[in-house]
Amino acid sequence: MSTLGSELRQRAAQQTTPPSSGDDDADKTQKSAPTSQASASDTDEDDLPVKPSKPVQSQAQGSDVLDSAFKVFSPRWRNWLIRGIFTWLMIFSFAVLIYLGPLALVLVTFALQIKCFHEIITIGYIVYRSYDLPWFRTLSWYFLFASNFFFFGESMIGYFGVLLARTDFLRPFMTYHRFISFSLYTAGLVGFVCSLVKKHYLKQFTLFGWTHVTLLLVVTQSHFIVQNVLEGLIWVLVPVSMIICNDIMAYMFGFFFGRTPLIKLSPKKTWEGFIGGAFSTIIFGIILSYFLVQYDYFVCPVSYDDSKDSLSMECERSHVFLIFQYNLPETIRAFFKLLGIQKTTVSMYPFILHSIAMSVFASVIGPFGGFFASGFKRAFKIKDFGDTIPGHGGIMDRFDCQFLMATFVHVYYSSFIKVLNPQNIVQTVLMLKPEQQIQVFAMLRDKLTQRGLIDNSTMSS
Amino acid sequence: MSTLGSELRQRAAQQTTPPSSGDDDADKTQKSAPTSQASASDTDEDDLPVKPSKPVQSQAQGSDVLDSAFKVFSPRWRNWLIRGIFTWLMIFSFAVLIYLGPLALVLVTFALQIKCFHEIITIGYIVYRSYDLPWFRTLSWYFLFASNFFFFGESMIGYFGVLLARTDFLRPFMTYHRFISFSLYTAGLVGFVCSLVKKHYLKQFTLFGWTHVTLLLVVTQSHFIVQNVLEGLIWVLVPVSMIICNDIMAYMFGFFFGRTPLIKLSPKKTWEGFIGGAFSTIIFGIILSYFLVQYDYFVCPVSYDDSKDSLSMECERSHVFLIFQYNLPETIRAFFKLLGIQKTTVSMYPFILHSIAMSVFASVIGPFGGFFASGFKRAFKIKDFGDTIPGHGGIMDRFDCQFLMATFVHVYYSSFIKVLNPQNIVQTVLMLKPEQQIQVFAMLRDKLTQRGLIDNSTMSS
Repeated sequence: MSTLGSELRQRAAQQTTPPSSGDDDADKTQKSAPTSQASASDTDEDDLPVKPSKPVQSQAQGSDVLDSAFKVFSPRWRNWLIRGIFTWLMIFSFAVLIYLGPLALVLVTFALQIKCFHEIITIGYIVYRSYDLPWFRTLSWYFLFASNFFFFGESMIGYFGVLLARTDFLRPFMTYHRFISFSLYTAGLVGFVCSLVKKHYLKQFTLFGWTHVTLLLVVTQSHFIVQNVLEGLIWVLVPVSMIICNDIMAYMFGFFFGRTPLIKLSPKKTWEGFIGGAFSTIIFGIILSYFLVQYDYFVCPVSYDDSKDSLSMECERSHVFLIFQYNLPETIRAFFKLLGIQKTTVSMYPFILHSIAMSVFASVIGPFGGFFASGFKRAFKIKDFGDTIPGHGGIMDRFDCQFLMATFVHVYYSSFIKVLNPQNIVQTVLMLKPEQQIQVFAMLRDKLTQRGLIDNSTMSS
Repeated sequence: MSTLGSELRQRAAQQTTPPSSGDDDADKTQKSAPTSQASASDTDEDDLPVKPSKPVQSQAQGSDVLDSAFKVFSPRWRNWLIRGIFTWLMIFSFAVLIYLGPLALVLVTFALQIKCFHEIITIGYIVYRSYDLPWFRTLSWYFLFASNFFFFGESMIGYFGVLLARTDFLRPFMTYHRFISFSLYTAGLVGFVCSLVKKHYLKQFTLFGWTHVTLLLVVTQSHFIVQNVLEGLIWVLVPVSMIICNDIMAYMFGFFFGRTPLIKLSPKKTWEGFIGGAFSTIIFGIILSYFLVQYDYFVCPVSYDDSKDSLSMECERSHVFLIFQYNLPETIRAFFKLLGIQKTTVSMYPFILHSIAMSVFASVIGPFGGFFASGFKRAFKIKDFGDTIPGHGGIMDRFDCQFLMATFVHVYYSSFIKVLNPQNIVQTVLMLKPEQQIQVFAMLRDKLTQRGLIDNSTMSS
């Protein structure tokens, strides 16, 4: 076994270190050094047929153009410049997107989701050498379509059900949405079974699993981003900025003060960076939140305005965006007393407290999304998920933490903020058939009367 | 590469054919012949380090006892007898379960789910030789726990929310259920990242994916079974019986009339069996449904009876369980006229029509669940998922089609039968805070008045 294993590893190691064919590659080789070291020290276990990276896709054209434009700089600085330029370009694009509003954000989320899916699935094809299963590749994309159809439909029905129900053409799609989604998926499953070829069984099942884990990671989580957008731009803008801030500040603190290594998976990460990043993110989060809660545009959920017949970004503010007077705990009061300040309450937007909770997650748990992605890349001996963004790698390389963060925000929002919104329930009722609406009303009237919550005077106002 | 591949395959083939060490094995060797044939004809692709089956677990004791009891029979007949006995034993156990009621069924579904998870995950450990990653095995079980916590909680809150909300101890678990579930899962994810060991990266990520696909297949689908139970025993009893009937009848028809092979994956299946099975299942489904709809015990959803302070199996019947007069289509009327019968309507339980839809799925799409499982077993060169049920293999070998069927029934039920039940909406409202309940009522009153659905007379009855 060990001879077999070592032969595979040797092949892998040969391919991990790209031939240095120019200045730019010199930097790359240096960067990928820990990776090839890792594969060399694999003593006896990892002998799956990894056929690793030459970078997954061919080098992006944009990067080439910039490479030649910055020829005067040394390769190391050139890479830095490109990375920096694209960092700012991405931040700027994000700002433009926020300006363009929720619809643009939703569309871009979709585009990014498709690209992430493409990147991960491509790695699967390369690792398991499956570019010779064309029918199966079509199937992967079909599953992507089917799962998006399901999730996107669920979101739309949840948020715009009443609006959509008015269009006769859409009504059956709404009522039978789950059934249609299930049929689409089942058709894919039948297609998969029919596409099985004796000599490829193992590969096909492995890639079936690979596709499904990717769908689970990418589609469900990007769907959470879409839902966060619909709940109000602030629920996307704040967490996304937090992750960016934490990335940058952890890097800065690590660069200037970093001494104690944090985790083996990412040898460059340090405790100093981790802690500095966390504090910066909390402070940044508070400031950004305080600024954003001033504007209805950021805090209002997307809703359909009946009177104007268009989408609206105005609303009656949720309580988390209204100033609230908190009683200070005894210890803090005592502390203020020592300073000669008589202060028993503090006025604040509740959202500021929520932003602290999000910052803590972004800086403590968020990085694990990145560690997970690092581990994945090391497992399959690739440097980046792709080379879509010059200097940064693939889209997935930038989004690893964002996905986990979006899921957190979604769960956090639906657990602590939304908690069964009366408006939504009424919306659900209005989607029923007229006679059922009356039935709900009558049942509710009886139950509430029975519980003593309403009486005759409440009924006719 | 091809020498590498063939060496691995040779090793695999050697281990696939178990050494015949007794009468019983003779039969096994015969049975596994197609498998080893398959591995021999693998020409150049499947070279993952499959270390296949000697049966996954050690031979079950029950089977041994029966083996010696039936020593007088030839091995082939002995296997038949054992298989037959356990078929009837399973059908009998299922009947007892139905008699014991929904709670027993839910508990057994859980037990089976855990066993299925165990069977599939064990294959993963063996295939990827990972019994030396004990920490990771704990994690798999932890993920099973976390996902069950989530799904089971969702079901319970959905069905018994109002009841559970009365217990102070349970209220926070209900309100923050999703957040708790997410925290549990995230803790697992962090645990996974921390458990990563350099030389095992690839194996660990592969098994992470393996675990998640298993969870997706087993946990979500068994959760659908639980929901079907809660919607009424008939939604489990009918589909489960249909799959059993289709299995048996397809086998019978195949045995007596089978000529034309159906699909390469399962060489014993024939078109004759497929068609015969489908017709038998439709007829069987109609008869069984007609019998079951007579009893409230089968058709009523599990609900909590306030007055008796206990679970109740009585209800006001849903319209699908009440006789309905259908107008016959013109063509059928004309046909009856030819026979001299003046018949323009027919009276029937709508459920009978739904049962036909379920039969069609059970016999046309259902088998693909089995084909999928066959393909999987062949991919990893194993004969059965386990040996829990003597003569049948593992639990998964009997449940492959049942899972797909349960999902179908769940989606079918929620698309065509449930379609937003007024009762459920009222239940949801009653879980809100009192002031929110009043708010919903007031909003609904205004909206319905505005739409002209209610007036002052409706309000006070």
